[in-house]
Amino acid sequence: MRVRYADTDQMGIVHHARYFEWFEMGRTELMRALGLSYKDFERAGYRLPVAEANAVYIRPALYDDFLTVRTTLAERPRPKLRLDYEVLRDGELLATGYTTHVFVNLDGRPVKPPRLFLDLIQ
Amino acid sequence: MRVRYADTDQMGIVHHARYFEWFEMGRTELMRALGLSYKDFERAGYRLPVAEANAVYIRPALYDDFLTVRTTLAERPRPKLRLDYEVLRDGELLATGYTTHVFVNLDGRPVKPPRLFLDLIQ
Amino acid sequence: MRVRYADTDQMGIVHHARYFEWFEMGRTELMRALGLSYKDFERAGYRLPVAEANAVYIRPALYDDFLTVRTTLAERPRPKLRLDYEVLRDGELLATGYTTHVFVNLDGRPVKPPRLFLDLIQ
Amino acid sequence: MRVRYADTDQMGIVHHARYFEWFEMGRTELMRALGLSYKDFERAGYRLPVAEANAVYIRPALYDDFLTVRTTLAERPRPKLRLDYEVLRDGELLATGYTTHVFVNLDGRPVKPPRLFLDLIQ
Repeated sequence: MRVRYADTDQMGIVHHARYFEWFEMGRTELMRALGLSYKDFERAGYRLPVAEANAVYIRPALYDDFLTVRTTLAERPRPKLRLDYEVLRDGELLATGYTTHVFVNLDGRPVKPPRLFLDLIQ
Repeated sequence: MRVRYADTDQMGIVHHARYFEWFEMGRTELMRALGLSYKDFERAGYRLPVAEANAVYIRPALYDDFLTVRTTLAERPRPKLRLDYEVLRDGELLATGYTTHVFVNLDGRPVKPPRLFLDLIQ
Repeated sequence: MRVRYADTDQMGIVHHARYFEWFEMGRTELMRALGLSYKDFERAGYRLPVAEANAVYIRPALYDDFLTVRTTLAERPRPKLRLDYEVLRDGELLATGYTTHVFVNLDGRPVKPPRLFLDLIQ
Repeated sequence: MRVRYADTDQMGIVHHARYFEWFEMGRTELMRALGLSYKDFERAGYRLPVAEANAVYIRPALYDDFLTVRTTLAERPRPKLRLDYEVLRDGELLATGYTTHVFVNLDGRPVKPPRLFLDLIQ
C-alpha cells in the first residue's frame, strides 16, 4: 500500500489518524482472505463497529512509502473480537496497533458472534 | 472555522481536498439558517448528492487559520441545485468554488426539487 | 464542534478515525487556553508527534451532532506528555481516549520538555 | 485501487471529496511511469500545488469497489499544467475530473515549468 500525499501533514510525516484507515484495510483484506468479504458480511446483516482503537507509533511513515499491514486475529471473540496490526516498511516496524469490535445487527444491537463468522476462523 | 492539523499536508498548507468538506459545512449551515437542517431534509426522505464539485485555489490556507465560508444559493434549482462558495481569512479571499446537486429520494432516484425545499428559498 | 457529513461512514455513524482529529482539536485549544498556541510552539522550534493514540467508543456520534471535547493534561511530562479526552454530546459521554507525545526539535530528534512548555503548565 | 470503508459516508457511497485523493494518486503514478516520482520532483526543489480542481460525478463508487484511475496529461504546461482523470469500475465510467497546477519552488514562488519536467513529457 502506497502512502498518499493526502495522508501527510505539515510535520512531513503521515498523520497519526490515517493509520486507523490502514488497520481497517488490513482487517478487510484478512476477512477476504478467510473467504468472506466484509461487504458480504454486512449484506448478511452484521456489522463490526469499533469498540476500542489503539496505535503505537515507532517510526514515521513518509509520503510515497510502500507499506505492508500485517493483521492478526488475536483469539476467538469472547465476545469482543480483537485484531492486532503491524505496519511495516521493507520489514522495518513503523507502528503496531489493535482494535476491538462488537458484533451488531443492522439495528446496531449487539449480537453474539454469528456462526457465519465463527466458521471462518475455525 | 479553525484549520486543523489533520487538514494540512507536507507542503505545509491545507490539502486541496479538504476545501470540499468546508463547502459542505457551508451548505449545511446555509440550510440551517434557511430553517431546515440537512439532517431533517434527509429524514424527510431526500438527499442531495454532489453532481459536480469545483474549487479554485487563490492563496493557501494554513494550520490554525480562522476561516469563514460564505455560501450562496446561486439560483432556483432547474433542476440541478447550484451553490457557490468563498473561503475567506480576515476578508482575504483564499478560494472560490461551486457544487451542483441533484435531488434524489432514499433509493437514490432523481426527483423534482421537493416543495419542502422550494418553500425555503422562496 | 459540529459533526460534518464527511465524518460519517456508511454505518451511518462517525468513522472511528475521525475522533483522533477531534482529540487533536482538543489539545490545540487546551494549549491556546494555557497561553501558547501550538502554532507558536512549532515556530519556537518544537513539535509534539504522537507516540500512542487510544480511543474507547461508548456511543456513536452522528451527523450534525454538536459535540464537546474535554481535554485534560494528565500529569507533568516525564518525559512523555499524556493527554486525556472525553467526547460529550449534551453531557452524555460518547468516547474517551488518550494520546502520548514526545517533544522533538525540527529535525525530529527527541528533546527534553522545553521550559517554554513547562512554564505553561506550572 | 480498492475503496476503503473510511471513504464512504452515510449516504452509503464514497464521499465526493475522496475522489480528489484518487486523482492525486493518479498523477503520482503517472509521473512515476514517466520516470520521475513526485517525491524526487519535490526533492529537486519543486512543487505542484493545485490551482483548480474539478470533478463530475456520474455514478457513485461503493465500498470495496475495485477502481481504476486513468490519468492524462492534457497538453504542454503553458504555464499551468493540466491533468484529466477518469474513474472506472470494470470499464464503467463513474467520474471524470481535472486539476490544474502551477510550478513553484520550495518558497512557494511560481516558476517556469522546469526542464526536468519538460524532458519527461517530451
